[in-house]
Amino acid sequence: MDDVNLSQSDLSGRVMAVLSKAGMSTVQTEAVARVIVAGERDGCKSHGIYRLEGVLRTIKAGKVKPDAVPVLDLNEGSAIVKVNADGGFANAAFELGLPALAERAHKLGIAALVINDCTHFSALWPEVEGVTGAGLAGLVMCPSYATVAPTGGSKPLLGTNPFAFGWPRANALPYVFDFATSVAARGEIELHRRSGKQLPDGWAIDADGNPTTDPEAALAGAMLPFGGHKGAAIGTMIELLAGIMIGDLTSPEVLDYLGSTALSPSHGELIVAMSPRAFAAGRPGDPFARAEVLFDAILGSGARLPSQRRYAAREKSLTDGITLTAAEIEHLDRLGELGLDAVA
Amino acid sequence: MDDVNLSQSDLSGRVMAVLSKAGMSTVQTEAVARVIVAGERDGCKSHGIYRLEGVLRTIKAGKVKPDAVPVLDLNEGSAIVKVNADGGFANAAFELGLPALAERAHKLGIAALVINDCTHFSALWPEVEGVTGAGLAGLVMCPSYATVAPTGGSKPLLGTNPFAFGWPRANALPYVFDFATSVAARGEIELHRRSGKQLPDGWAIDADGNPTTDPEAALAGAMLPFGGHKGAAIGTMIELLAGIMIGDLTSPEVLDYLGSTALSPSHGELIVAMSPRAFAAGRPGDPFARAEVLFDAILGSGARLPSQRRYAAREKSLTDGITLTAAEIEHLDRLGELGLDAVA
Repeated sequence: MDDVNLSQSDLSGRVMAVLSKAGMSTVQTEAVARVIVAGERDGCKSHGIYRLEGVLRTIKAGKVKPDAVPVLDLNEGSAIVKVNADGGFANAAFELGLPALAERAHKLGIAALVINDCTHFSALWPEVEGVTGAGLAGLVMCPSYATVAPTGGSKPLLGTNPFAFGWPRANALPYVFDFATSVAARGEIELHRRSGKQLPDGWAIDADGNPTTDPEAALAGAMLPFGGHKGAAIGTMIELLAGIMIGDLTSPEVLDYLGSTALSPSHGELIVAMSPRAFAAGRPGDPFARAEVLFDAILGSGARLPSQRRYAAREKSLTDGITLTAAEIEHLDRLGELGLDAVA
Repeated sequence: MDDVNLSQSDLSGRVMAVLSKAGMSTVQTEAVARVIVAGERDGCKSHGIYRLEGVLRTIKAGKVKPDAVPVLDLNEGSAIVKVNADGGFANAAFELGLPALAERAHKLGIAALVINDCTHFSALWPEVEGVTGAGLAGLVMCPSYATVAPTGGSKPLLGTNPFAFGWPRANALPYVFDFATSVAARGEIELHRRSGKQLPDGWAIDADGNPTTDPEAALAGAMLPFGGHKGAAIGTMIELLAGIMIGDLTSPEVLDYLGSTALSPSHGELIVAMSPRAFAAGRPGDPFARAEVLFDAILGSGARLPSQRRYAAREKSLTDGITLTAAEIEHLDRLGELGLDAVA
């Protein structure tokens, strides 16, 4: 069977059909479909249609509200805008809060958007690109399930806690990074297990806290933070800021609540937006022009900018459409027919 | 000759004598002396009296204004407070801006302090502890000299760009981390060179961009970021936020301006303060109590909290005084007598 070429809207229609069949309301469906399509468009298969089964499983387990109605709290007089996701996916909540966040950040120079009571299932770069799309620099973080041990410790206490940042560019896609604060994603360890391969050194410890290259032992133990104690410190900061400070779950609490890492995690999310125009006001030089000088120097030295590969895939998708295998199309059709019956 | 035991105020008097003799005004002297004494108190020799010669060299080179008068711009109606350091050290500027930053952050939930036109010569933890002392979480960053190559690049374009964070604790010293976003500090490479030792793998590249363990080649080449491309991304973010966004120098510009890494770097600094009380308002649980649960779990798992060693040294110093070697005392005396004549 041949690969199938789809436009973004074709793919979006198919994804929305799956989500609607599973009982998701329009506002939830549209927001989740947008990020799944963006994942496929950008060649991030791990954040594309692959995620649909997890969405269905999480709905079926009753751990996300498919018809949640996010509520915006403008919190006037403050630099913090809040959205309560009402137990739904973070995506609709983010879309609801973004305009108020952007307005507040342009006015005050710096502002934060807190999303509470949400289920997160995607990368953070969609949020980052939302912020940069408003001409703002953005810093986004959230906890995850407790699967990472702080350096020197023997127990998983931190999540893979993604840390993401973006800077807007006038004539190019934004500077964006978005990475796990663990050495590797849990999925990569799972892939090693399935293919019977040993892990590289430094990825994980076993249940007794000893270094291991055995994927089974690693899954029963803990992953390690990137960059040793520095990565552990950043992961801990994310628990504090994007879990505890915003009054939402930490990674150990997420795992307790779900009892599984096979469901989309429930917690909160913290988005900080900063206006380069407001910060640079009265100072020499245009911040956006100066950033281009830095990016040119980085590229000129032989290094890459983060997201370059993703943006290349996007460019290709926008020209040529999104290619799925026939098996992927069949899978989508099956999920669209069976809905929640497609998952255990 | 024996070691000498000093009280904090004894040491402070000696340090202030050196700085005054070098022509520094009272406001500059007191702020710089406070962080030098704090460095010695906390057993951070690399941020203690060792730094005095660099201060004197920088004054003598005309690259810092010893009698600078920092100016506070309250920037009413915004969440950004600014201090222009007037070409003086960052420390006096920070002390001037901190009360306004704290007031703004308590009121708005999140606020930023920008320091412009300053010379930085210390760690960032004194700033972080200033913010946590006001009951706020703090994120602090600044550029440095361009000595670090982005992963995959062959040229030093980033500084060692410290990244620091703090969380206030009611009955303990704050949770604080403060680290360079390079694998190692430049001083560590210098120490290897002096003692004729090879560097560990992964610390540096030579001038052609090839990995090297030769300290001379590393000093002529570039250091590497911690954690590979993730650390490089954070280092780049710091150039963008704490250099370009605040309208101040980036690390390559700092190096161009100074022409040397032997002088204290001139640039700006970004301090973001967040109120856990404001963020957590209306949500279940007390954020400070919940953070203690996380810290207890980390310690209970055999891991350490950052700054533990520094705090142990502080406790000892507060009980027993600060111990300097006789050679260090002689050195202080010499600097106090000769002032700027003590340095080339």
